[in-house]
Amino acid sequence: MKIKAAVIGATGYAGAELVRLLLNHPDVELTALCSKSFEGQKLSDIYPSFLGLCDKVCINQSEAVDLSDVVFACLPHGLSEPLAAECLEKGRKFIDLGADFRLESEEEYTEWYQKPFDKPEIHKEAVYCVPELFRDKAQGVNVIANPGCYPTSAALGLAPAIINDLVETDSVIIDSKSGVTGAGRGLTQTTHYPDCNEAFSPYKVGMHRHTPEIEQTLSKLGGKKIKVTFVPHLLPVNRGIVSTMYLKLKDGVTKEQVREAYETKYANEQFVRVLADGATANLKNVKFTNMCDISLHIDSRTGTLIVVSTIDNMVKGAAGQAIQNMNLIMGLDENAGLNLVPPAF
Amino acid sequence: MKIKAAVIGATGYAGAELVRLLLNHPDVELTALCSKSFEGQKLSDIYPSFLGLCDKVCINQSEAVDLSDVVFACLPHGLSEPLAAECLEKGRKFIDLGADFRLESEEEYTEWYQKPFDKPEIHKEAVYCVPELFRDKAQGVNVIANPGCYPTSAALGLAPAIINDLVETDSVIIDSKSGVTGAGRGLTQTTHYPDCNEAFSPYKVGMHRHTPEIEQTLSKLGGKKIKVTFVPHLLPVNRGIVSTMYLKLKDGVTKEQVREAYETKYANEQFVRVLADGATANLKNVKFTNMCDISLHIDSRTGTLIVVSTIDNMVKGAAGQAIQNMNLIMGLDENAGLNLVPPAF
Amino acid sequence: MKIKAAVIGATGYAGAELVRLLLNHPDVELTALCSKSFEGQKLSDIYPSFLGLCDKVCINQSEAVDLSDVVFACLPHGLSEPLAAECLEKGRKFIDLGADFRLESEEEYTEWYQKPFDKPEIHKEAVYCVPELFRDKAQGVNVIANPGCYPTSAALGLAPAIINDLVETDSVIIDSKSGVTGAGRGLTQTTHYPDCNEAFSPYKVGMHRHTPEIEQTLSKLGGKKIKVTFVPHLLPVNRGIVSTMYLKLKDGVTKEQVREAYETKYANEQFVRVLADGATANLKNVKFTNMCDISLHIDSRTGTLIVVSTIDNMVKGAAGQAIQNMNLIMGLDENAGLNLVPPAF
Amino acid sequence: MKIKAAVIGATGYAGAELVRLLLNHPDVELTALCSKSFEGQKLSDIYPSFLGLCDKVCINQSEAVDLSDVVFACLPHGLSEPLAAECLEKGRKFIDLGADFRLESEEEYTEWYQKPFDKPEIHKEAVYCVPELFRDKAQGVNVIANPGCYPTSAALGLAPAIINDLVETDSVIIDSKSGVTGAGRGLTQTTHYPDCNEAFSPYKVGMHRHTPEIEQTLSKLGGKKIKVTFVPHLLPVNRGIVSTMYLKLKDGVTKEQVREAYETKYANEQFVRVLADGATANLKNVKFTNMCDISLHIDSRTGTLIVVSTIDNMVKGAAGQAIQNMNLIMGLDENAGLNLVPPAF
Repeated sequence: MKIKAAVIGATGYAGAELVRLLLNHPDVELTALCSKSFEGQKLSDIYPSFLGLCDKVCINQSEAVDLSDVVFACLPHGLSEPLAAECLEKGRKFIDLGADFRLESEEEYTEWYQKPFDKPEIHKEAVYCVPELFRDKAQGVNVIANPGCYPTSAALGLAPAIINDLVETDSVIIDSKSGVTGAGRGLTQTTHYPDCNEAFSPYKVGMHRHTPEIEQTLSKLGGKKIKVTFVPHLLPVNRGIVSTMYLKLKDGVTKEQVREAYETKYANEQFVRVLADGATANLKNVKFTNMCDISLHIDSRTGTLIVVSTIDNMVKGAAGQAIQNMNLIMGLDENAGLNLVPPAF
Repeated sequence: MKIKAAVIGATGYAGAELVRLLLNHPDVELTALCSKSFEGQKLSDIYPSFLGLCDKVCINQSEAVDLSDVVFACLPHGLSEPLAAECLEKGRKFIDLGADFRLESEEEYTEWYQKPFDKPEIHKEAVYCVPELFRDKAQGVNVIANPGCYPTSAALGLAPAIINDLVETDSVIIDSKSGVTGAGRGLTQTTHYPDCNEAFSPYKVGMHRHTPEIEQTLSKLGGKKIKVTFVPHLLPVNRGIVSTMYLKLKDGVTKEQVREAYETKYANEQFVRVLADGATANLKNVKFTNMCDISLHIDSRTGTLIVVSTIDNMVKGAAGQAIQNMNLIMGLDENAGLNLVPPAF
Repeated sequence: MKIKAAVIGATGYAGAELVRLLLNHPDVELTALCSKSFEGQKLSDIYPSFLGLCDKVCINQSEAVDLSDVVFACLPHGLSEPLAAECLEKGRKFIDLGADFRLESEEEYTEWYQKPFDKPEIHKEAVYCVPELFRDKAQGVNVIANPGCYPTSAALGLAPAIINDLVETDSVIIDSKSGVTGAGRGLTQTTHYPDCNEAFSPYKVGMHRHTPEIEQTLSKLGGKKIKVTFVPHLLPVNRGIVSTMYLKLKDGVTKEQVREAYETKYANEQFVRVLADGATANLKNVKFTNMCDISLHIDSRTGTLIVVSTIDNMVKGAAGQAIQNMNLIMGLDENAGLNLVPPAF
Repeated sequence: MKIKAAVIGATGYAGAELVRLLLNHPDVELTALCSKSFEGQKLSDIYPSFLGLCDKVCINQSEAVDLSDVVFACLPHGLSEPLAAECLEKGRKFIDLGADFRLESEEEYTEWYQKPFDKPEIHKEAVYCVPELFRDKAQGVNVIANPGCYPTSAALGLAPAIINDLVETDSVIIDSKSGVTGAGRGLTQTTHYPDCNEAFSPYKVGMHRHTPEIEQTLSKLGGKKIKVTFVPHLLPVNRGIVSTMYLKLKDGVTKEQVREAYETKYANEQFVRVLADGATANLKNVKFTNMCDISLHIDSRTGTLIVVSTIDNMVKGAAGQAIQNMNLIMGLDENAGLNLVPPAF
């Protein structure tokens, strides 16, 4: 019998991508879609790409929760907490693609999101999970905090270096570039085509809310408080994140040690590819899939390890990883519904 | 037992797209890849997107034919005929994505391709097949001429109007726009990024080799010789064709008759969507899938029927339709391996 | 002494482009900018590209009119008529980049814009002027109706064929593709980057308000009522229009006659280039300039003349042509401030 | 009397951009164009954008040198040295847009370019000149080494911090992103449209030949040997470079000191704009002009100064700066021919 899944916030970009992927998941039946803005309308009225493939009408949240075993939430921050409470009460699994449960420290959450935790008890139960790094903690849990897009690219790209203590941790620089879907479906001047096309710049320099999330993961992996300098840029493509990350190598660490750390860590991972020496990670090779490609470069002139990590922000950075997490907590094969081959162009 | 398939010309764009789709086909095992230019190299060396997913080494054609039940050919014109002969001799099915078998008239072929038929007997056996229009003729045949990308968009968009005799056939105008993958993987100044980006123009105005192919189909459907004015344009996107087609409505033909003709014709087709009144076909809604979206517009001021037809040139216009044809001649469900959901962005 | 110019609606795209061009006009001093939405703000706050080059603060319309000899209006339809009245009263020249004065027939205006003329007496005085076609009528007039972008590309591309009676006029088809700046600065879902990028479709099929404007010009040139089928498309580039136009050649008209008509008509025009046989007009060659490139193609198989006409929608299709018209009515060299060399990439 | 200028290598991208700008330079007459690949052809045959504006035929180098006062060279490395010798012999000024004279140390040149200096005596005479930093050294010299594109963006963005000793110099990280024209007109798979569009990656990580050029400038400004980690990326836009640069602030250095250093240094520079606090440099605001926009950001959490510097790689990064240098050595106003207003879109 198939797992019944609901997508709350189905007409946002992450929600629509979840629908796309769930429609082809062999073990899932999509039972309900919700959208505050478009309640009563068909998903295919909002996105004509779904015409004939998913013409479900958006219903309200409570109905949706009733109809499902697993609830995916793609909501602005602050709205997931009450929904999680309702799901737990009704015995549903809850996977949050938003930010509500990502930060474990209420202090940090309050600092970056200007509000306290509303349901601290659920935060204790929620597990923040990049499966390749934290899957052990996620078996059978009821609430998953699905990682943000930038933090996923950074965590996967930095984990082996941090875990194996290969780099100094007081000067981690993360220069990330994201496709425009990362900014969501809402209209802004910045994402108006003529303003965004043939343009490029950083934004929220040193102030992006994904900063504490990245630091939380690295600190866990490194066993000490690690701070990072994180600068995101808006890239004129639809999808994909490339994070170019600069790390000071510890004295005596060799190129071979670096490579071994990465290859060992990801030897059995279907969704992470550590590229061979000489290759460079390019977002085009992971688009539309749950893959993360990582390339390793050492600038021996300055003793710098440069890690390039790339994912599709909508898949591994959102909907795909959420499904991977669902597979994990529901006891399915982790790659169920995610055997996607990236288009070569 | 799975069908064994070989892709000849696997490192060209159509070939690579075939590999992408065949890797997820439930009834097919990809047994061999060939590439003259890259023999001895892995597909994933040429397209790193395939790393870990298809690292097959390109072998030579004869070996590949030996290893397979079905052979897909993605070759420049002139090279499919001898390969088809070899396949028939060895009892293999042959699906040609190139131009060799598309034109039934040797005279026309010679005029547009400057060479005669080399194997006229195979031409008699070959069936040109847009499945939605000609599937009856394709059951169990050994050689399929898979239609060109522009002709597919035109044929599907015009068939109901022609078959039902709704339009004048002496003034058919087809203004098509194609993504750059249509020009192939080979390097040209026109497809050099800075020359192609932020640029737009027609090419081969009135002289494109797909013209006689379109005319052949329309003439068959209309039961008389039909000529068209066909102008392709190079569109700065990777994928997709939009054909905007202008037809003089016959006296007295109503909007309702037009709509009924289209809806009836495609009522049971999974891969053709006739959009509702007021909607306009957009290539973004069919990308990466085997879909064809058609919108109908009547300019009553001038008595003109405007049909907009859009496909993904690499899928319904090449690899996807080839698989649909393979499914057809092998007795599989026509949509096997082709249940693709277009990404909304 | 320099001519004092004001730009009303300076923060829209046409207005900002006018400012860009006027800043380098040798005979013009930009004395005032207006913007209803941004009154009191600097232009460079809205468009940082102008920082240090034009930091003028947007003031109100009446002040601006007082400060200037010539007033350029870039306003939504309906707002230019009262402003024109004020300008005439104060003895200013008025150049309207909007639609208010383009249609000479109040009946047609009412049909397409759902409102009557408010100031019919000014309409009598206003001259609609593509300079290459109508400059004789514009010398010294007080009110110029600056043509729309699509109509400019169509009029220049079709004029020689119509004037010289080379084509049938009952089946004129105009398939136009425009860059996204044509849709203006206002936010819409259609022009949201991820919706617009890697996408393509027609819009307002057979219903665009530029249709009667095109017909008015062709009818004047042809000396009889001419109707057209006009379909605009949204092209994923910032700037540029390509109009591919299909005309039935009259019996016996030769290729040479067609070419001669075009070359003769435009022999002395700096801003129109009739390309040689074999060349194809491409928007990249006219971008950022006041040029119109025209290529001529004859499909002898169907007796069709295909004219490709391309302009920069923001320059020759708006701000550049407005300056050309200002030069004309102020007695300056027509090309003053418009000697722009298109970037090759 | 106008200065006679020749462009050698006129059909490459830098050469074509020089022609575009020189055609509107008030004090220059373009007397000769050369192109090895296209000798005997018109520039407008190669770039139809120049049709009617520059139909000059490409002649050979020696003729061109004879016809000119100033020679601009846009040649692959190794070819400028002999040409410089010829120019000096014939009493011409020589401005090299290539790499031959950029590095002052023959040892470094040999290491990065795998060849020694052929004409060491000319290297002594040549002056490497970013005018805003080194104009004092360039007055009246005969040979100018025009800086590379990445080094220009880096030097202007870092100079005030280095000169004023505000930052540590042992951990300078330069993460640069360049539009595709930076890769030149030559065809490569990487710059083939479908490979380059909707793609993004770094290249030549830590190994780009602009590295020693950047270090040379910073070392001069800082009065000590400074090394940098430099990673360029290929950005899917035609033009523009954004360099995001990370520097460790020295203890006690304040935000105000940083701002003052930048504003003071560039107070009188027409082509450098230091943006206000809160603004972020975006390549779209400098495109098609000789501008450099710089924004300053301090990540106080990590003590990092982040400088974002953006230029048009073809103008300030090549042709525009070359003209600025020509103006300088010929005693013209430095901004002659360079009063360009960036298009807002």
